[in-house]
Amino acid sequence: MLRDRIRFKPLLDKLVSAEEAAAYIKDGMTVGMSGFTRAGEAKAVPMALAERARSHPLKITLMTGASLGNDLDKTLAEAHVTARRIPFQSDPGLRKAINAGEVMFIDQHLSETVEQLRTQQLKPVDIAVIEAVAITESGGIVPTTSVGNSASFAILADKVIVELNLSQPVSLEGLHDIYIPSRRPTRMPIPVVTPESRVGLPFIPIPPEKIVAIVVSEKHDSSASILPPDDDTRAIAGHLTEFLVNEVKQGRLGYELQPLQAGIGTIANAVLHGFIDTPFHDLKMYSEVLQDSTFELIDSGKLTFASGSSITLSAEMYRKVLPRLAEYKHHLMLRPQEISNHPEVIRRLGLICINTALEFDIYGNVNSTHVGGTHMMNGIGGSGDFARNAFMSIFVTKSTAKNGAISSVVPMVSHVDHTEHDTDILVTEVGLADLRGLAPRERAAVIIANCVDEAYRDALQDYYDRAVKRGGHTPHVLEEAFSWHANLRDKGTMRPA
Amino acid sequence: MLRDRIRFKPLLDKLVSAEEAAAYIKDGMTVGMSGFTRAGEAKAVPMALAERARSHPLKITLMTGASLGNDLDKTLAEAHVTARRIPFQSDPGLRKAINAGEVMFIDQHLSETVEQLRTQQLKPVDIAVIEAVAITESGGIVPTTSVGNSASFAILADKVIVELNLSQPVSLEGLHDIYIPSRRPTRMPIPVVTPESRVGLPFIPIPPEKIVAIVVSEKHDSSASILPPDDDTRAIAGHLTEFLVNEVKQGRLGYELQPLQAGIGTIANAVLHGFIDTPFHDLKMYSEVLQDSTFELIDSGKLTFASGSSITLSAEMYRKVLPRLAEYKHHLMLRPQEISNHPEVIRRLGLICINTALEFDIYGNVNSTHVGGTHMMNGIGGSGDFARNAFMSIFVTKSTAKNGAISSVVPMVSHVDHTEHDTDILVTEVGLADLRGLAPRERAAVIIANCVDEAYRDALQDYYDRAVKRGGHTPHVLEEAFSWHANLRDKGTMRPA
Repeated sequence: MLRDRIRFKPLLDKLVSAEEAAAYIKDGMTVGMSGFTRAGEAKAVPMALAERARSHPLKITLMTGASLGNDLDKTLAEAHVTARRIPFQSDPGLRKAINAGEVMFIDQHLSETVEQLRTQQLKPVDIAVIEAVAITESGGIVPTTSVGNSASFAILADKVIVELNLSQPVSLEGLHDIYIPSRRPTRMPIPVVTPESRVGLPFIPIPPEKIVAIVVSEKHDSSASILPPDDDTRAIAGHLTEFLVNEVKQGRLGYELQPLQAGIGTIANAVLHGFIDTPFHDLKMYSEVLQDSTFELIDSGKLTFASGSSITLSAEMYRKVLPRLAEYKHHLMLRPQEISNHPEVIRRLGLICINTALEFDIYGNVNSTHVGGTHMMNGIGGSGDFARNAFMSIFVTKSTAKNGAISSVVPMVSHVDHTEHDTDILVTEVGLADLRGLAPRERAAVIIANCVDEAYRDALQDYYDRAVKRGGHTPHVLEEAFSWHANLRDKGTMRPA
Repeated sequence: MLRDRIRFKPLLDKLVSAEEAAAYIKDGMTVGMSGFTRAGEAKAVPMALAERARSHPLKITLMTGASLGNDLDKTLAEAHVTARRIPFQSDPGLRKAINAGEVMFIDQHLSETVEQLRTQQLKPVDIAVIEAVAITESGGIVPTTSVGNSASFAILADKVIVELNLSQPVSLEGLHDIYIPSRRPTRMPIPVVTPESRVGLPFIPIPPEKIVAIVVSEKHDSSASILPPDDDTRAIAGHLTEFLVNEVKQGRLGYELQPLQAGIGTIANAVLHGFIDTPFHDLKMYSEVLQDSTFELIDSGKLTFASGSSITLSAEMYRKVLPRLAEYKHHLMLRPQEISNHPEVIRRLGLICINTALEFDIYGNVNSTHVGGTHMMNGIGGSGDFARNAFMSIFVTKSTAKNGAISSVVPMVSHVDHTEHDTDILVTEVGLADLRGLAPRERAAVIIANCVDEAYRDALQDYYDRAVKRGGHTPHVLEEAFSWHANLRDKGTMRPA
C-alpha cells in the first residue's frame, strides 16, 4: 500500500518517524505547513515538534494556508513553539497568546502571503511540512483536503517533509489544480476564466531530492464546528434570497446568478444551504472553503461546480462525502489559495461574495476581526480579497450577540477591515440594506431602517441625527463614536439606559 | 481644419452651439462626462448647462473619470445642477456642498465605476459628453488629455455629445489605447503584460449615429496646482530613495525597480522628481495621472515609458510638453481608468505604489479622505486600487500640518481608507517605517520611532504604553483614541498641554 502511495521509489528510503522528521526543524526557523481551515494540515510532525519543545525549547515562525485543526495551534502555542504566526488562525488558545502579545500574529489577505515570500519581502521558508495523499512517479506531491499555500511553500523551501496520510482517500488524487503565477515583471495572465478552468498540474512539482523525510500518519482532519441553521440564519438567508430573486426580475442577474463565494462559518454556510429552496439553478462556486452547504447544493442538483482551496466538513458530512469522493470529483477542484483568492480571477469571474461581519456601522464599514477594536478573533482571511473585487459584496451577521447585550450595528466600528467602498449589501435577520450607489448619509438611513435590532434603533438614529448637525460627508460625534463599546465594557451591555 | 478633425463627414451636420447641445441634458438625467484630474474634461457644454440652470433649474447625477478643471465642479454645484456626484472630485466649492449634505457624493475606487454601470448596479448613463481631439473616418472618438471613464460612458450611453477642442494638439491622436474588458461571466484575461502593452484601439469605437451633437471649443485644460519641492518633500524623497537603494543592495529589486505608480499631488510628485538624482535607471510607470515629474524623468533619461489615464501638468510644463508631444509619444500611453487602475493588471505588473496619506495611525491604518473623520477632502480615488494590489504599497505625508498644530501620525485614524494590511512602507520627513512582516505591536514601535514629529512622539508613546496594558492584538485606549482630534477641534491644536 505504501508503495502505491510513494511511487517515486528512491523516496521510500526517506521514511522516518515524526520525531526524526521534526528534528530538521531548528530554533529560529520559518516553517511553512500545509493546512487551510482545519483541512489537510500536517499533523504528526508539528505534534512531535511540540513534544520535543517541552524538554528542548525552540521558537519558530509558523506559516500556513489558514487555520489548523487537531488543536495544533493550541498545542504549539502552549509549548511556546510559535513565536510568529502568519497569515490566519482561529484557535482560542493561540488567540489568547496573540492578544497577550506573546505571539506576533501577522494577519494577511490570504492571497498575498506567497507573493510576499516570492519577492523576499517576508523571511524565506526554511522548511515545508506538507500533508500528502501520494507522491507521484516524478516525485510530485499530491496534497490532501487542502492546497492552501502548500505548493509555494514546497517550491520555495530548501527542504520538504512530507506527511503521507493513509486515512485520506486516494480518490483525492486528480482533484487539485496546481498553478503558480510566473515571477514579475514577466508575469502572464492567470488563465482561469471559469470556476472549472483546469490550468495546472494535479500535484506539486518539486525536485524529489528536496524531500528530506517522509512520515506516515493516519490522523483524520478535524471536523468543522459550524452550528445548524436557526431562525435568525434562516431569516438572513430569506432576505438575501428575496433580494437576489428581485435582481433576476430586474434583469441584472440570471437564475444562474454569478459564481458564489461564501466565507467560513455558521451564517454563510446557512445562507448557502438556504439556496436549496430557491428558483436559482446551475449555480457555481469559486470560493476558498467548501463547506457542508457546497455538498448539499451539489446533492440537490443546484450547484454544478465548486472551486476552492480546501474541503472542511462536519463529522456527519465527512462520513458521507469521503467514501463517495470519486462521484463528487467532477464537480470539484482545489487550488492554491493564491489562485482561489486572486484579485485577478475574482474580478474576472464576477463573484457574488458572502462574508461574515463581527460588527458594521451606520455607513457600512465592517469589522471582521477585532472584538472591542483591540482583541483578535481569527483574522481577515480571504474576506478582503473577495469583498474588494466582488461583482457584489455581501456581509451578513445577526443584529445582536450575547443575548442582545451587543448590537452588531454600531455608530462607528471599533476596527475597520472593509471600508464602505467594499460593502454593497448588508443583511441581518432584521432585514437587508442595499447600499449600491448611495452616499454615506443615504447609507445610514437604509442601514438604520433595515438592519438594526429594535432595542438599538432609536439610539442609533439619535446618534446619527446629532452627528448630522455637525455636518460632513460622513457625519460623526467623534467623542461618542465608541461609547457603545465603552458601555459594553463598563456595564456589560451596549443597550441604552 | 474642422474637416480634418471630423473625418466621418456626415457628422459635420451635427455641429451646434454649446447651448443647443446642453439642451439634450434634461432634469433628472445621469450624465457621464470626460475628465480625469483636471485633464480632458468637456468644458463648453457643462458651462452652458450651468448657465441655463440659473434661469431653468435642473438637477443631474454627474459622473466623470475623476476631478474636473476649469472650476466646472464649482460652477455646477453653485448653479445647483449637481445633485449626485460620482466617483471623485477635488473642488473646494463642491466639497462644501458635499459636507453640507446638499450634494450626494458617491466616493468610489476609480477602477470600479464602469464595472457597476455595466452590470446595472448604478443607474444608467443617459448621455455622455466627451472632449475629443478628432472623430475618425469610422466615427470613433479620439480623446484628448485623459481617457478616464469616457470610453465606457460613450459606449453605454444612448446619446453622445462630442466637444471638439481645437486647442488640444492633434498629435494626441495615437496616444490612447482603448480596451474594454468583455462582459462577465465570459470575460477573458486583460492582455496588458507590460506598461507599454498596446491592446486596444487608438479611439473610442461607437456607432456614429449615437453622436447627437458636436460642439467646438478652444478652452485649455487647467494647470495643476502642485507646489514645488521643499525641504520636507526632499527629505521624504531622500528617505524613500535610501530605502529603495538598500532593497536593490539586498537583492530584492533591480535598479529598474518595478513599474511605478504615484498618486496626484505635491508630495508624490516631489518624490518622483527626487528619482532624477538616484542610481535607478530604465524606470517605467504604470499610473493614473502623469504629472510634471513623469516628463522630468523622461527628459533626464531615467524613465523609458509611462502609462496613465491622464496628463496633468503645471502651466510651465504644459507650455514645454504640448508642442513637443510628438517627441514624447513613444514614451507614453493613455488608458481607460478601469485598465490603468485594474487590480488584475496592477497585481500582475507588480507596482511600487506611492500615495499620499492625510493621516496614519500607530498601526499603519491610513486616512486619505476625511478631515476630522467626517469632512470629505477629495475622495479615495485610485489609492485603494493601487495600495491593495501593489508589489509594495508606500504612503507618504509630512509629519505635521498647520504649522505643527496637527500631527499626521495619530493614535487611531479618524477614518480608515486603507487598512494596515495594505500599507507596507510609511514615510514622513522624519523618517521611514518598514512594516513588512510585522505584527501590529511591532508596527507601532517602528512607526513611533521613525515617523513622528518630536513634539508628538512622547505623547504617542504614552498612549501606546497605556494601550498595551489593556492587552489585545491591536491595543487601544478606545475612549481616548480620538482625543487628539478632539483637542484640535476644542483648542486648535493636537499638541499635548
